[in-house]
Amino acid sequence: MEDSSPRSGRSTFVWLVGASQLVGLASVVLTGVWMGHYRGGFAWDGSPQEFNLHPLCMVLGLVFLQGDAILVYRIFRSESKRNVKMLHGIIHFLALVISIVGFVAVFDFHRAAKIPDMYSLHSWCGMATMILFCVQWVMGLVFFLFPVASSWIRALYLPIHVFCGLVLLVMAVGTSLLGITEKLLFSIMPTYSKFVPEGVLANTLGILLVVFGVLLGYLITREEYRRPPNPEEEALSVHFKTLTEGGSPSTP
Amino acid sequence: MEDSSPRSGRSTFVWLVGASQLVGLASVVLTGVWMGHYRGGFAWDGSPQEFNLHPLCMVLGLVFLQGDAILVYRIFRSESKRNVKMLHGIIHFLALVISIVGFVAVFDFHRAAKIPDMYSLHSWCGMATMILFCVQWVMGLVFFLFPVASSWIRALYLPIHVFCGLVLLVMAVGTSLLGITEKLLFSIMPTYSKFVPEGVLANTLGILLVVFGVLLGYLITREEYRRPPNPEEEALSVHFKTLTEGGSPSTP
Repeated sequence: MEDSSPRSGRSTFVWLVGASQLVGLASVVLTGVWMGHYRGGFAWDGSPQEFNLHPLCMVLGLVFLQGDAILVYRIFRSESKRNVKMLHGIIHFLALVISIVGFVAVFDFHRAAKIPDMYSLHSWCGMATMILFCVQWVMGLVFFLFPVASSWIRALYLPIHVFCGLVLLVMAVGTSLLGITEKLLFSIMPTYSKFVPEGVLANTLGILLVVFGVLLGYLITREEYRRPPNPEEEALSVHFKTLTEGGSPSTP
Repeated sequence: MEDSSPRSGRSTFVWLVGASQLVGLASVVLTGVWMGHYRGGFAWDGSPQEFNLHPLCMVLGLVFLQGDAILVYRIFRSESKRNVKMLHGIIHFLALVISIVGFVAVFDFHRAAKIPDMYSLHSWCGMATMILFCVQWVMGLVFFLFPVASSWIRALYLPIHVFCGLVLLVMAVGTSLLGITEKLLFSIMPTYSKFVPEGVLANTLGILLVVFGVLLGYLITREEYRRPPNPEEEALSVHFKTLTEGGSPSTP
């Protein structure tokens, strides 16, 4: 019974957020250890070490930071909406920059090593995720950070933006798992089935990414963790309702 | 503006359900064509043709049927809750049986070909999905189809059951994509980068599975497509609220 009280709900929330951050950071560290220790470290010279920046940037930018950029709406539920929006946009901008570095790294490595681009399912899913991520970021900027669209269009777009954000996070996790599988089969196919440490480490990374996605999905979608509506949102909602029902809005 | 009217919303819903079924069926057919035409067909004798049943059963059972089993709650919104529950349970039972056949097929093939089990990320994710699927099915049976638990425990468990259902569907799609990547790299690694028809077909299958997952996710989570609360649910909700707030329930 205790579990349903608000205080207990809030304490569960804190534990879940803590767990998500621990799992997310562990994923970034494991990716660094995998590429740094087992795959020869990092460079920016067209060598396989340049490729190694790709998984690290993608897990850090498109998974961990993207997840946290969404989570700020749940963590800072009592802060001003404007400040939380700014933080959401800034973390997403960081995620975008880091993932573009990771994106360039793999194409640059392919060019130097004369490896064809865009033939694998990982690359198809990754490209779709990157394009959708850029579109989502620009749309977010236009609609919410520097809103140029009218209130009712913003209200209409908000649930689509939220849904696409979650889809993007799931696609980023899924594409990472495809990348892990590809990298393992390209690098250690003869020994992978012997449970060598590199394979077990990379599989564990994959499972951690899944756990991160599930924790974030739960925290984001759980009704009781949602941001309570504030007067600004109420006004927008009334405005939208009045417009769609054909009357004239009571507020501009 | 028209888009926000209930009739237009319902028409969008019908088109989205139609699209999901088309994409889902296309995925099953493409899996059949891939295994049937490019991988030598099907058998039950420990040969690679027995393995071929694995992707077909998993895409049919764990992705398509599992997705449709969830969708019945959105399609039959005006039917009796009891009948929809039964249908939900029956389709899930079919999904369970078909996925167990697919599960046995791969282990049987591995045993005959002396291939080690459970070393890849695909197998780890697949095993987690299968275990969670079985647990979810048994819990659904105990809690909702032959409810032995009290109302307030059922009300407490319902959102978890719904969330886990969506997680399971996403895990099934993700694990299928990992399986596609594994199978392609095991079978056509030297020619995959030359955009051979088998590779393009399998990649297309992966993208269709992602589209199926996104369509289902949208249909399931969109607020306006949810089943409107009925008196039975209202009573349960009041009963739950009274209990958790420490009073005595007004209904038994």
